[in-house]
Parts: sequence; C-alpha cells; structure tokens
Amino acid sequence: MAREETLTGPDPVEGGWRAVPTLDLPPILAAALDAFREHGYHGTSVRDIARRVGVTVPALYYHYANKEALLLALLDRITQDFLQRALAADAEAGDDPRRRLAYVVESIVIGRTRQLGLAALESEIRYLTAENRARQTATRDQVEQVLREIVAAGVSNGDFDVVDEAEVVRAILGLCHSVLAWFRPDGELGPEEVAERYGRIALQMVTGASSTQVDRPPA
Amino acid sequence: MAREETLTGPDPVEGGWRAVPTLDLPPILAAALDAFREHGYHGTSVRDIARRVGVTVPALYYHYANKEALLLALLDRITQDFLQRALAADAEAGDDPRRRLAYVVESIVIGRTRQLGLAALESEIRYLTAENRARQTATRDQVEQVLREIVAAGVSNGDFDVVDEAEVVRAILGLCHSVLAWFRPDGELGPEEVAERYGRIALQMVTGASSTQVDRPPA
Repeated sequence: MAREETLTGPDPVEGGWRAVPTLDLPPILAAALDAFREHGYHGTSVRDIARRVGVTVPALYYHYANKEALLLALLDRITQDFLQRALAADAEAGDDPRRRLAYVVESIVIGRTRQLGLAALESEIRYLTAENRARQTATRDQVEQVLREIVAAGVSNGDFDVVDEAEVVRAILGLCHSVLAWFRPDGELGPEEVAERYGRIALQMVTGASSTQVDRPPA
Repeated sequence: MAREETLTGPDPVEGGWRAVPTLDLPPILAAALDAFREHGYHGTSVRDIARRVGVTVPALYYHYANKEALLLALLDRITQDFLQRALAADAEAGDDPRRRLAYVVESIVIGRTRQLGLAALESEIRYLTAENRARQTATRDQVEQVLREIVAAGVSNGDFDVVDEAEVVRAILGLCHSVLAWFRPDGELGPEEVAERYGRIALQMVTGASSTQVDRPPA
C-alpha cells in the first residue's frame, strides 16, 4: 500500500493559529506543486514530477498511488490547516461572539496568506474523484459550521444584526478567501495586520443589517 | 490576419445591467470552453477543439491565431461584461454614494452569476502572455477605480466610515467574486435577490468601522 512521504512538514498550527510558518513541503509534493502550477494538472505527468525530484517513477508510486493522490495531498494541506487554525482560534477567543468571529476570521486570513503557493491549485479540485472531493468539502463545511455557531450566538445575545445567518457566513468566508487574489508577501501590510482588518470588516458585515436600506427610484 | 468569429453573441449589457442573458458563445468558443474545462488549458490541443466543433484546424486558425487567442477571447467576455455593467449601474444610480455602491455591487454579482460556465477559466489567466494579462488587468482596474470613486464620495459626504478606502474596495470586490463559489442557477435565490443582499452587505462594510473594536485580553 502506498503511503505519504515521511517528511510531512510542520504541524499546521505549530506556534499557534497566528503563526505563519513558511510553506515547507516534502520534496515530491514540492515538485508536484511546481509542475501543476506550470503546466496545469492535466498537462503534468507523473514522469515529469519524478524527473523534477530526481527519483524513479516506481519510487514515486511507492509514496503516492497516482497523480490524483499528489493533488489530494496538496489540497489536504490547505483544508486541514484551515480547519485546525479556525478551531484553535475559536477556542482561544472564549465566549464573546464578537471576539470569536474576529479571531476565526483572522485565523483564516493568516492561513490564506501562508498558502499563496498552493492557491492556484484550488481550482483543480474539480479533477478529484467524487469521493475525494467530498472529503475536501466535508472539512471546509466544518469551518463553515464553526462560523454558523458564532453568528447564531451573536444574533441570540443581540450583538449581531443580520438578514440571513447562512448567507452572511458564506459572504465572510468568500471575503477571507479573496485575500489570495491580491496579498503579496512583500506588500505594505503583513499577514497579521491584514487579518486584523478583515476581522473588523467581518464584524461590520454582521452589524446594522436592519438599518441598511437604499432608496430606489420607482422602476 | 485572423479575426474572431462573426457570431459574437449579445451585447453584454443588452437589456440593461440587471439583465441576465444566457451565455451565448459562438461555436468555436463554446467548444474551447468545454475542452478547457474538461482537460485544462494545457491539456487541450487546438486539434481537439476543431474536432469538437466539426471544423478543420486551418479553418479554426482563420478565426483565432492560436490557443491563447481562444482563452483570451473567453476571458475578454468576462472582463468586458464586468466593466460595462458596472459603468451602466453607476450611471443609473445618480449622485447618492449609497445607491451608487449598492447598484455597482449588484451589477457585479449579477454578472458573476451569469458567468458560471466561464468561472473555472479565471485561474488560467496565468497562462496568458504578459501583454494579454496586462490587458485583462487594466479592464478590471477600471471597475476598481469606479468603486474607489464611490467610496471616496461617501467618505467625503459622511455617509461612509472606513479604515482604508483601497482596502475596503478590494474586500468588496472579493466578496462579489466569491458568489461564483456557491451560486447555483437552481438555488433558492435568483441572481437579482442575491445581488441585492450583497449590495446591502457591501453597505455594511463601509459603515461603522470606527466603532468596531474587539476586546483582546493581554497577550
């Protein structure tokens, strides 16, 4: 039975959920990532990845059963980091829904800025088998569930004012993920600063919905 | 000199910026889109596209100079629709910054829900030459500029309260684009309803920033 490389890299939340370790991929995964980014998933062969890392094709198959297993291992790094950070942030925040929301959003944004190198892969999720895609989705759903609980708690104690709880959670997640589109490691703001600002914007998104109306001239 | 197909489809804003026409691609572009979605850009050959549409390779080259020209023509549909809708929405909204923001956000969200079939292509933008990528970016920057002007107008007249104007515009654009990740044509809400809700969330994002703070226990 094939198994993953023994060099599995650091624990995703080593150093706490605010830590931003460098992307530390084992050699085969690093080569697969480079190849997928250059030529796309379908444009890459297992032979090409083996050549990049300097191993034979059978040696590569000892670690990963096929090309999809490489893609899945890379995507798993993203989703597991995503979930573990969110759970750690929520635990640290205590009971205040406002602090819980801010911390979890910060954890997601920090995680995203760490995963720039993996980001281009996310659209390749459509090439996974249904079973593997479901596994990815289930992990992401757990993060969504954490946010749903936080928003429900804030609505319940009167801190938050939203039109539709599920919708605003989806919107907040969309906002967090969008950081990938523009964040640059050498930019003006570091991951923690961007994360804190997005935590604040997320709090605005769950505040004052019922007083937000726009006058529309009659059609 | 190669030229695009004569069947260029409907004007992007035919029927106004709220209209959601079906994606009406000329045959070669439709075949290219199907092939890129199934096999990725690098996994697709011009020969494969020609075979799908039932023309010879030279006939295809008469319309599009190469595979990148096909990708660019598809991406241009997204970005031109994006810009034309935003400009039309802003013009209709008049002078009120709140209505301008709501309408432009609605126009972007409606445009996104229309482009589901093209969405998977956006990550392939990295395969364009620098010149073609710059052309795409320039069109997107024009939409960002419209939003920047609206936010500046709202801050100036006291309607809006934000920490960083450029940042909140980026956040709003990220929110709008994220609709692609979950919107389904057979879902509970139609494009106009989703758009209106996102317009409201965007207004919340530019409101009340200076009173949004989270108590943080000492580190």
